[in-house]
Amino acid sequence: MSSDNKELLHRLFRAAVSSAVPDQVIKQHLPEPPKGRTIVLGAGKASAAMARAFEQAWEHPLEGLVVTRYGYEVPCDHIEIIQASHPVPDEASEIAATRILEYAETAGPDDLVIFLISGGGSALLVKPAGPLTLEDKQDINQQLLSCGATIDEMNCVRKHLSAIKGGRLAQAAAPAKVVTLTISDVPGDDPAVIASGPTVPDPTTRQDALALLERYDIQLPDHVMNWLQDDACETPKENDPAFQNVDLRMVATPQMALLAAAKELNAFSATPYILGDSIEGEARDVALVHAGIAKQVVKWDQPFEVPCVLLSGGETTVTLRGQGRGGRNVEFLLALAIALDGQKGVYAIAGDTDGVDGAEEIAGAIITPDTLERARALGLNPQAELDNNNAHEFFEKLGDQVITGPTLTNVNDFRAILIEK
Amino acid sequence: MSSDNKELLHRLFRAAVSSAVPDQVIKQHLPEPPKGRTIVLGAGKASAAMARAFEQAWEHPLEGLVVTRYGYEVPCDHIEIIQASHPVPDEASEIAATRILEYAETAGPDDLVIFLISGGGSALLVKPAGPLTLEDKQDINQQLLSCGATIDEMNCVRKHLSAIKGGRLAQAAAPAKVVTLTISDVPGDDPAVIASGPTVPDPTTRQDALALLERYDIQLPDHVMNWLQDDACETPKENDPAFQNVDLRMVATPQMALLAAAKELNAFSATPYILGDSIEGEARDVALVHAGIAKQVVKWDQPFEVPCVLLSGGETTVTLRGQGRGGRNVEFLLALAIALDGQKGVYAIAGDTDGVDGAEEIAGAIITPDTLERARALGLNPQAELDNNNAHEFFEKLGDQVITGPTLTNVNDFRAILIEK
Repeated sequence: MSSDNKELLHRLFRAAVSSAVPDQVIKQHLPEPPKGRTIVLGAGKASAAMARAFEQAWEHPLEGLVVTRYGYEVPCDHIEIIQASHPVPDEASEIAATRILEYAETAGPDDLVIFLISGGGSALLVKPAGPLTLEDKQDINQQLLSCGATIDEMNCVRKHLSAIKGGRLAQAAAPAKVVTLTISDVPGDDPAVIASGPTVPDPTTRQDALALLERYDIQLPDHVMNWLQDDACETPKENDPAFQNVDLRMVATPQMALLAAAKELNAFSATPYILGDSIEGEARDVALVHAGIAKQVVKWDQPFEVPCVLLSGGETTVTLRGQGRGGRNVEFLLALAIALDGQKGVYAIAGDTDGVDGAEEIAGAIITPDTLERARALGLNPQAELDNNNAHEFFEKLGDQVITGPTLTNVNDFRAILIEK
Repeated sequence: MSSDNKELLHRLFRAAVSSAVPDQVIKQHLPEPPKGRTIVLGAGKASAAMARAFEQAWEHPLEGLVVTRYGYEVPCDHIEIIQASHPVPDEASEIAATRILEYAETAGPDDLVIFLISGGGSALLVKPAGPLTLEDKQDINQQLLSCGATIDEMNCVRKHLSAIKGGRLAQAAAPAKVVTLTISDVPGDDPAVIASGPTVPDPTTRQDALALLERYDIQLPDHVMNWLQDDACETPKENDPAFQNVDLRMVATPQMALLAAAKELNAFSATPYILGDSIEGEARDVALVHAGIAKQVVKWDQPFEVPCVLLSGGETTVTLRGQGRGGRNVEFLLALAIALDGQKGVYAIAGDTDGVDGAEEIAGAIITPDTLERARALGLNPQAELDNNNAHEFFEKLGDQVITGPTLTNVNDFRAILIEK
């Protein structure tokens, strides 16, 4: 029974990842071919894989250029791949942004611009606006991060300092038809947020940006402040003609991945419940809350009746305390196992849908009711392993790792907790 | 609408607290009067209030002695109140335990012993077994805490070093009839865990305790090790005749408080869902998970349909980072407000059912969709206030505190999140 349950959890994870893999999803979102050229542009950790998937599915001539993270290149026949640095941008990010913007400007009214966007696109596509430099942008980012501004607030400022974000790429491509295909890894899947929305109207104004800088008492150099006083820094708005011919399509999201896993359960008696597609927080504390809910289900048959599977996505964080080999998904699982303390009938899987949890090519792991017992029999102290952030080694010794290899996509973390009588 | 919602949340909190107040619940659990004496004993932060409630409801002669925390005394006519230190025991805890044990030994076959137990009872009732001293027990406690032992494991060791816990009080009271009335503040409500179960059979053995000390490599003085090798240290087990005449009744628990709040919603259209009666974790991270679930409900109408109320109990923790005035419930709420970021239709209350969240006599607070907006209009920076653990002051300035005064009971934290369209 236990090995059946493990296989079921593996199956749910595979279904979630498959729902987001470029080879599977890009072909479902092909637009009509244009009279003119098809130009494929893009940025993100999955952009090279998305470009290859597009090439393979597109039965017409095409050309293009995408930027991805170092090491995330996959060979394409017609689309050039540039590699750049993530999460801290480098010169290659700026070269890529400049070339992509110039490429978009070559598009005419009969052309089709396909824009492939995925997580990491913001750092891989950097072009300071007006008189700004890459150093200016890095400095402002640092100040925004340390003042407690929200992501929305940071994006408002960033967009007004960029020559490509906040809808400016759509302006460059107009009047060509633009189809943006997006793999989302941000909470809420807001296209204006993912990679700071290069083809999406910006709902914020430069006055908003100035008000934020004042509220957080952020001091910027004169040439930056002068730029923000200049109408030229204003981003295009919803009524801008540049957006009349833009089509935004989400091809993969955390919620779609959770729904794919839920659908996989159709053939089983356990009912799926999706707790959230954007659960955040310190991994070990997120685990405590999940354990609290699972125990409530076991003890009181509420808020869900058994058998059931609790699904959730999003991205937890890990505050490093030790020197071990870990990742946020396996840290979550080890903390979950400790909190469940051998609770009968509860099994769980957690993994990063990109196949890399932490620094190693290990997607995640699985826990069973006897995880702690088996660990102790091997001489492991589960709490000490957690304190040392050593969950990869912990699950390696148990033989309970989930290894997929790099999946060339990313819709964040995937967690499933199976609860039966 | 907003003020109606605030009133509804207040009402849910009042219902939860009322379900646990000694004056309300003790009278529902009175046993048959005995032929002989009625002896009321007890320990815990609510024990004096429970004793008074018992006195007022019991229409027969009675006598007795209970120990409570300094400052938690309430006047009783027939039952003596001793005050002692919590959470670190003092000499008064040992005097109380000795006198309570001696009192129990005076009970004869026609007598009835009422044992009133509530949170804090473990520290307030300390009697080292055999050759051990209070210092020995404190030292062992410290070692157990720092080695990463679980609560169950700590209790296993503690019970074998105590003259009153792990069922020994029931042994002292036999052959009298014993009725234990318990207000639970521990996850799982296990009577063997609450105050280390003075009237409950101990499922663990001295061999278990010795194995634990070896596993965690804990070094104890010779006289302690010798005691653990002695059969006299063994706690009474389920088949011990001392338990034949013991009746255990839970009179208030976190789950009962949540059910009382859920019942209060019968008159409203919002459906209650109890996420868990023992949710633990760092308050701000627990808030992030609750925010994630609330957002899922708003955005996808799953795992629950609106309108609904998410209820949860348990005890979160706060890692102090700042110098502010705070408590775990208001810290949870402030973090929740920041994570919800003005989300329309979401309101929440959180409070400690004992009326004291942190160090002040403030039970908790309420948040509304415009909490952040109103705070910013007052010149407050919500994230900075959270970073400074200053949530009491934050909600004081907003006029959104929940103040009940000390409730003389404790079934942990109470949280309710109302979600409507």
